[in-house]
Amino acid sequence: MAKAPGLKDVAKAAGVSVATISRLLNGSLVLPDETRKRIETAIRDLGYVPNPHARRLSRGRSDMIGLVIPDIANPFFAMLVAAIEEEADKLGLAVSLNATLNRPGREMKYLGLIEHHHVDGLIFVTNHPDDGELAGLINRTGKVVIVDEDVPGAMVPKLFCDNHQGGYLAGKHLAEFGHKKVVFVGGPDEMISTTRRHAGLEQGLRERFGEEAEIKRYRGEYTVTAGRHAARRFLDEKLPATAIFASSDEIAIGLIEVLYSEGVSIPDRVSVVGFDDVGPLHLFTPPLTAVRQPVRAIGARSLSLLLQTDWQQPETLEREELLPVEIVVRSSVAPPAIEKKRRS
Amino acid sequence: MAKAPGLKDVAKAAGVSVATISRLLNGSLVLPDETRKRIETAIRDLGYVPNPHARRLSRGRSDMIGLVIPDIANPFFAMLVAAIEEEADKLGLAVSLNATLNRPGREMKYLGLIEHHHVDGLIFVTNHPDDGELAGLINRTGKVVIVDEDVPGAMVPKLFCDNHQGGYLAGKHLAEFGHKKVVFVGGPDEMISTTRRHAGLEQGLRERFGEEAEIKRYRGEYTVTAGRHAARRFLDEKLPATAIFASSDEIAIGLIEVLYSEGVSIPDRVSVVGFDDVGPLHLFTPPLTAVRQPVRAIGARSLSLLLQTDWQQPETLEREELLPVEIVVRSSVAPPAIEKKRRS
Repeated sequence: MAKAPGLKDVAKAAGVSVATISRLLNGSLVLPDETRKRIETAIRDLGYVPNPHARRLSRGRSDMIGLVIPDIANPFFAMLVAAIEEEADKLGLAVSLNATLNRPGREMKYLGLIEHHHVDGLIFVTNHPDDGELAGLINRTGKVVIVDEDVPGAMVPKLFCDNHQGGYLAGKHLAEFGHKKVVFVGGPDEMISTTRRHAGLEQGLRERFGEEAEIKRYRGEYTVTAGRHAARRFLDEKLPATAIFASSDEIAIGLIEVLYSEGVSIPDRVSVVGFDDVGPLHLFTPPLTAVRQPVRAIGARSLSLLLQTDWQQPETLEREELLPVEIVVRSSVAPPAIEKKRRS
Repeated sequence: MAKAPGLKDVAKAAGVSVATISRLLNGSLVLPDETRKRIETAIRDLGYVPNPHARRLSRGRSDMIGLVIPDIANPFFAMLVAAIEEEADKLGLAVSLNATLNRPGREMKYLGLIEHHHVDGLIFVTNHPDDGELAGLINRTGKVVIVDEDVPGAMVPKLFCDNHQGGYLAGKHLAEFGHKKVVFVGGPDEMISTTRRHAGLEQGLRERFGEEAEIKRYRGEYTVTAGRHAARRFLDEKLPATAIFASSDEIAIGLIEVLYSEGVSIPDRVSVVGFDDVGPLHLFTPPLTAVRQPVRAIGARSLSLLLQTDWQQPETLEREELLPVEIVVRSSVAPPAIEKKRRS
């Protein structure tokens, strides 16, 4: 079997440097038509197929990173992908994006992209509980940065928003308006996004009201459907709180939709605080107060973590980095309805 | 050079069928831990690297398709990607997603994925004008389905929403409320989405008002920023129309944001109709009337076009398929302000 033609052979045939071809192929260079066509002809004539093992830029950096996310239909993930794409583009890196639909089989497969050297590192986002299998594979694979939700037991760099702080800011804001009884609509119980936001909310409320503070926890998923279910439960239970902390944009959308259709006015009857703030919440009726995730910063930092980590020094690897969040105050929080009644 | 190990060698070493490994690798099969580990060990021991040329399911179908889109941060594209992912998953196909950020260099590169057999077909979305170079490369490459916007001169199957019908439905709806003067906020002039929606709008208005109908055309991009610019121009020109047709969700968001902040009430001062309807427009103040794109249908059909087309019969290839749109009537259109004044 003859040796497969390499980048050097193509460069020689086209009369250009290896770096020029490499940059043309990764899209970071636009060449005059005539030069580009000469290179394309050389590639075709030689039957050159880029070899994933050889796909490296100068200074030993890879030109392709992988990005694994659960679901692109969720605007938070879509914005995160866009932020990573933009940052990667600045660095001349291509991104191979893979959606897992939260299927463990797909996650395992995409981790295999590293083992098979099709990408040189992965930014990995999952949001379902792991029985240890995923963590094991990640530890064996290496060159993985875990973003947004934890995979417990994985010994790789991890980057999250400061979920506890986000919950705390929501709780403090609600407490300032006099809300003691709050319904927390979270995602799956095992996820750090849910447990930490819940703990932060509790701290924010207890700082002001101590044992009087009362949090009811609705478990669910980060979806519009789960938001609708939570609203129906809230109505079935005859409004068991004066405020709701909806822990994602998607949950807030489903929740508000049902509250409206049932004539429950926000914030007159119930106050609502959201989380994510990637959708057009400022145009809602009323504009929704929400904790804002630093999506661009998460995108940029996850990429720099992947590129700057010294993967040869496993003992330096495990560390958790938190990016700060802020609360964007709009008009969906008012004093509890019961307070207003007493005053009038 | 020794022959590289193939799927058959792995299957033999692991004591399973080739089909089992193929399905495990493409994520469509979950195996007992013990079996999976045996296969993984065999893959590692043999140093097996999946060969893109050999990556085929039974019946000659590829297991990896490519999807090229301009920008994942635009929710319309994010939803389109999700629709294609979901459909691909049902068929046991993996999707390699690539964002071009509208850079021709990146588009050329991803078309190269087919030439290099890394994917077995591409669903291709672009939204910038082409000087013929892209069309030429697409024609040379084959196995490309063009979706959402045209690449003139490309002789491959094309799938669009019925843009003309969408514009017509918006125009008819506005005309029914008595609007004769309408501002059309479009994307780039050369794009069929803009020219066809504009022509449809004109037909809808002229059917009722003939030569009295007056359309002012604002050129721009399908972005929130362009929507903001359009609103400022509309204000600078002292409200030159009684209604605005904003030809994307993103444009509508930027437009409404500025109109609000300047105290221009919708629909009391100006009526607005949007296009896309993928965002939570039903929660806006007021809920926004919009033409809805059939995103799921576009996703499913673009995949079936790619899989069902007989690529060996070039003469049967070129055809344009349109998917119907509908108008979702909410509360952002009312009779023109001037009419209301006369009546009261």
